Amino acid sequence: MIVILKPQAPEQKVQQLIRDFEAQDLKIHFSQGESSTILGLVGDVAHVDMEQVLANEVVADVRRISEPYKAANRRFHPQDTVVEVCGRKIGAGYFAVIAGPCSVESQPQMETVAASVKASGAAFLRGGAFKPRTSPYSFQGLEAEGLHLLSAAKKATGLPIVTEIMSEDQLDDFTDVDIIQVGARNMQNFRLLKALGHCDKPVLLKRGLANTIEELLMSAEYILAGGNERVILCERGIRTFETCIRNNLDISAVPVLKRQTHLPVIIDPSHAAGNTWMIEPLSRAAIAAGADGLMIEVHNNPKEALCDGAQSLDMQQFADLMQDLKRRVAFEGRELQG
Amino acid sequence: MIVILKPQAPEQKVQQLIRDFEAQDLKIHFSQGESSTILGLVGDVAHVDMEQVLANEVVADVRRISEPYKAANRRFHPQDTVVEVCGRKIGAGYFAVIAGPCSVESQPQMETVAASVKASGAAFLRGGAFKPRTSPYSFQGLEAEGLHLLSAAKKATGLPIVTEIMSEDQLDDFTDVDIIQVGARNMQNFRLLKALGHCDKPVLLKRGLANTIEELLMSAEYILAGGNERVILCERGIRTFETCIRNNLDISAVPVLKRQTHLPVIIDPSHAAGNTWMIEPLSRAAIAAGADGLMIEVHNNPKEALCDGAQSLDMQQFADLMQDLKRRVAFEGRELQG
Amino acid sequence: MIVILKPQAPEQKVQQLIRDFEAQDLKIHFSQGESSTILGLVGDVAHVDMEQVLANEVVADVRRISEPYKAANRRFHPQDTVVEVCGRKIGAGYFAVIAGPCSVESQPQMETVAASVKASGAAFLRGGAFKPRTSPYSFQGLEAEGLHLLSAAKKATGLPIVTEIMSEDQLDDFTDVDIIQVGARNMQNFRLLKALGHCDKPVLLKRGLANTIEELLMSAEYILAGGNERVILCERGIRTFETCIRNNLDISAVPVLKRQTHLPVIIDPSHAAGNTWMIEPLSRAAIAAGADGLMIEVHNNPKEALCDGAQSLDMQQFADLMQDLKRRVAFEGRELQG
Amino acid sequence: MIVILKPQAPEQKVQQLIRDFEAQDLKIHFSQGESSTILGLVGDVAHVDMEQVLANEVVADVRRISEPYKAANRRFHPQDTVVEVCGRKIGAGYFAVIAGPCSVESQPQMETVAASVKASGAAFLRGGAFKPRTSPYSFQGLEAEGLHLLSAAKKATGLPIVTEIMSEDQLDDFTDVDIIQVGARNMQNFRLLKALGHCDKPVLLKRGLANTIEELLMSAEYILAGGNERVILCERGIRTFETCIRNNLDISAVPVLKRQTHLPVIIDPSHAAGNTWMIEPLSRAAIAAGADGLMIEVHNNPKEALCDGAQSLDMQQFADLMQDLKRRVAFEGRELQG
Repeated sequence: MIVILKPQAPEQKVQQLIRDFEAQDLKIHFSQGESSTILGLVGDVAHVDMEQVLANEVVADVRRISEPYKAANRRFHPQDTVVEVCGRKIGAGYFAVIAGPCSVESQPQMETVAASVKASGAAFLRGGAFKPRTSPYSFQGLEAEGLHLLSAAKKATGLPIVTEIMSEDQLDDFTDVDIIQVGARNMQNFRLLKALGHCDKPVLLKRGLANTIEELLMSAEYILAGGNERVILCERGIRTFETCIRNNLDISAVPVLKRQTHLPVIIDPSHAAGNTWMIEPLSRAAIAAGADGLMIEVHNNPKEALCDGAQSLDMQQFADLMQDLKRRVAFEGRELQG
Repeated sequence: MIVILKPQAPEQKVQQLIRDFEAQDLKIHFSQGESSTILGLVGDVAHVDMEQVLANEVVADVRRISEPYKAANRRFHPQDTVVEVCGRKIGAGYFAVIAGPCSVESQPQMETVAASVKASGAAFLRGGAFKPRTSPYSFQGLEAEGLHLLSAAKKATGLPIVTEIMSEDQLDDFTDVDIIQVGARNMQNFRLLKALGHCDKPVLLKRGLANTIEELLMSAEYILAGGNERVILCERGIRTFETCIRNNLDISAVPVLKRQTHLPVIIDPSHAAGNTWMIEPLSRAAIAAGADGLMIEVHNNPKEALCDGAQSLDMQQFADLMQDLKRRVAFEGRELQG
Repeated sequence: MIVILKPQAPEQKVQQLIRDFEAQDLKIHFSQGESSTILGLVGDVAHVDMEQVLANEVVADVRRISEPYKAANRRFHPQDTVVEVCGRKIGAGYFAVIAGPCSVESQPQMETVAASVKASGAAFLRGGAFKPRTSPYSFQGLEAEGLHLLSAAKKATGLPIVTEIMSEDQLDDFTDVDIIQVGARNMQNFRLLKALGHCDKPVLLKRGLANTIEELLMSAEYILAGGNERVILCERGIRTFETCIRNNLDISAVPVLKRQTHLPVIIDPSHAAGNTWMIEPLSRAAIAAGADGLMIEVHNNPKEALCDGAQSLDMQQFADLMQDLKRRVAFEGRELQG
Repeated sequence: MIVILKPQAPEQKVQQLIRDFEAQDLKIHFSQGESSTILGLVGDVAHVDMEQVLANEVVADVRRISEPYKAANRRFHPQDTVVEVCGRKIGAGYFAVIAGPCSVESQPQMETVAASVKASGAAFLRGGAFKPRTSPYSFQGLEAEGLHLLSAAKKATGLPIVTEIMSEDQLDDFTDVDIIQVGARNMQNFRLLKALGHCDKPVLLKRGLANTIEELLMSAEYILAGGNERVILCERGIRTFETCIRNNLDISAVPVLKRQTHLPVIIDPSHAAGNTWMIEPLSRAAIAAGADGLMIEVHNNPKEALCDGAQSLDMQQFADLMQDLKRRVAFEGRELQG
């Protein structure tokens, strides 16, 4: 950590600041320049509060040199993490596709879609029971009944299930869920993240609409710090100035995350696109960029979907897409799960 | 609502779509253009799911003409809402300042700050008991003990208290809190919003870092739709490409919100700035632009603050600021509460 | 075009507005709703000034239904445009790589790099003679001498050359240039675009840092409207809130542009990344997403480069990258030029 | 400047890097940490090319400590610059309003508007002769005839004139112009900036839609470095994710610029708002935040305006606005020019 002092900072106060740092077991490198003086802090700076240092009257600026996350940091954990769920692997060359409807709507819907996406090559079934909707007047999900229908579809097809949690008090109802999803709007719901750190299920953590990659990794750190090491990161498009598409898929997040962390990284092209016709090119790009999986919305009848119909593939479209993606996963030398 | 059809859409499918709309009690205006055909939907379109319409194969695009929020909409509620709490009013010419430390740290701290900000002219005392921190290694707040210290400071000074809630399961512990704050990261925590819709306390709803004004109003709508009419909106800076400041205070949010909704609007210059020296000019701008109040971080010893020290005024700085702001509130013909 | 009228707009003024539209040869569809009245304008609305309509006192809002660009619009020009330069083709399945240093620095540099990138499979040589630099104190390019060195390298290797123009008064000096590049900062330098519309050379038009896809196509429209039909679009990363990388490559721009326009689309991974290690994954993603080419910075000695050294591949890195990219272009069924 | 070395960087290459810096007359402070080693460069680092340092294989990151601009930097020029034009002053307590139509349209229009805005209290007349329009099909300005009409209006009213330049080759035609405006889209047209650095007229430099404050100051630096010290900066709204308004006025740019530079700062509320009803609250906020002036679009008949009608005040609206603004400028203890 680098602390830049104000010009003409009183010597006495600078010495006090240095003593304060030394009291935290940090070594100080003092660098006196012409227009500014710099302190280099050496030691375990992860617990130094940058805001507090900035509040000191002699400090002009503070910059972090090392990343503020540890458990998620590839520097301290060079091997890729492989998350294994019900015999399916994600990460380190294992590639998995999660597919299913935006929201669980009925038993026939779930049975039909689950059987179809399994046949097409999906490794996991997704479906929302609790839906975070911008409008209080939109369909909010079947809730407990939705979880029940997911379990039934899992029993019928053998596909492990992925569904979104909204609050830590729902955890008891998620015992039959195989991967718990944290949605983009809850990426910094820290009480939820802490609770997930103490549960024994893999967590699929989606990046918030306007959250930095560092913030995503800090949210992963909440879960890892609690003892739960099975975290899958998911990029799903970010919010920018562009208005002609719903979100901008941040494809560079794949190589950046792969460099910064050992955790698996998947892409959700459906939410990034907000339409069906962009899912194929974005999925291709995701595989080529090095993603460990995809999460794709599939519905038996998109135009009657209670949620996200505009971005849901129908079952045939998904089957066709999977044909193409299988070739691509093989081309990259990865192993498709399912 | 306007539905733009694809060129060469099959007549039969268009007729089916029209019948579907009519079955929802909507009247259809049909406008046949050269390069596109447009359907104008007339009636109560608030419950029409745009995504579902978009998913229809003959539909090229859908545009909303009217706002998707009703209870928050000034069109249906022209008079300004005045939120009254413990005899203090906010809105419609009543201006209130909320002040206090980022986080509750100790009894002497709260007593000292509360007495000081009251003497300087604050109408409410703020302080965080539960702190949403980006890092799991940062101070997370005193929690229950923090709420207790807030209550003690309220008893000692008579200042009503404002503090942040993190999850709906904390509501039972907030009985002595006068205004419940929803932080920027929880603006779309819909379960929390629903729970607050059914409580009898005013809610201070902060705009998310990258949420649109429409999304802010939709989140307010969640609370209003539950029956709680006492919602105060708070702009606290948005996330943009600019890196030399922490957030960009969206000053235009004040006139836009004043036009779109009847709810009071306050500004948090402390979080927007991320430093102390910008609080004064941003506060001045907020008053001039028409805000109904300010929320400002004040600490008895900013450089020892456990949270947000860099943006906390000390007590003397706040006293000086209030001297200037009083003149300005009077200049605008508003009535300072306190 | 849809015109939404204000509620309670005086009948007389609405009738006047309708007559004004009819005087522009537009047919009006009138749609009277409960809370708003809508006019649908039918006819050639490309010349209707939305701002002027918005300024009318009875108008609440105006929305365009059709795109404001014509010559660039795939709707009116369904076949892919193939830009052919010195026997190399770009577009419609023909894939080309443009490579070379950020700035032209010396004769040995250009000779070395040109020979090397040609051997590796590049179809075009790039190099900047006039450099747009943020700082007036940075190296600004060799200018006329730079153009001369480019010509020499072209003569030596046979590689056609691509270089950036800064102002329309430089056009006379660009006679030996094969593709004229318009940089991101000049994307809306409309005088330059008009001048390029009247020249007989292909133009490589880069998207501005924070320009929408529609604005990019409107800038292309300036060139096309002048009679120059050889425009190549280039996505090179956009500016967002993310700070850990220099720009966010907008991979979705590829499918969106492919759908909206017939013009070829290439990707510049070097400027998007701002570093060397991301060039490979971004190039892979670009090919998979459907791009028609790549523009990559290559330098004989990146750490001595006068410009953009941090993002320049050395010649061996580029040779290795091309080996991989050739397999990928073939996998996609495209034909590599060079 | 701080250079962060890669862990395990070979000692020999680090020593070479240090010798390279020393050869540039820089002193090096070496700070060996546990996980990283840092070099602090002391001396005149304005000419050190960060990109080149970053390209060195032993370097992990480079951070600037001091600002890259000098002539524009308040640190080296603590007194406020006052730009004086035809007896009107801007800066250091002198407040000026620039008003007039978006584009010059006709002699009667210019005469009418000029006389009216002068009577209302404007100090300068604005009007565009060359218009940068997104669409090639929009009105592009009267060009030479527009400059002529501006001169006539100046002669008739005595108001100095402000108009936008598009290219350095127009400079000869701008002899009668009093302040030359550089539009947002040309903020990084470096050839134009260089040419303006060598002219003897004040320059009004508008911030680009998505340019940082540092970039704005670097563009000012181009002009100052050429010897022209009369630069006025103008904030006119930035591009963000928000769609309900055209641009977000960055009010914090006022205090930030006032702190970083000695140059005067004005606000253009018309372009920020994109409508008329937000001009008043944004103007109020600008004055309160410390701006040195305003630039406001006024038209004799906004609904017939050839450009930007939706955001143009009519002459009576402007007269009313000025009545309010005069009180506010006086309240702030500033001196209105005119």
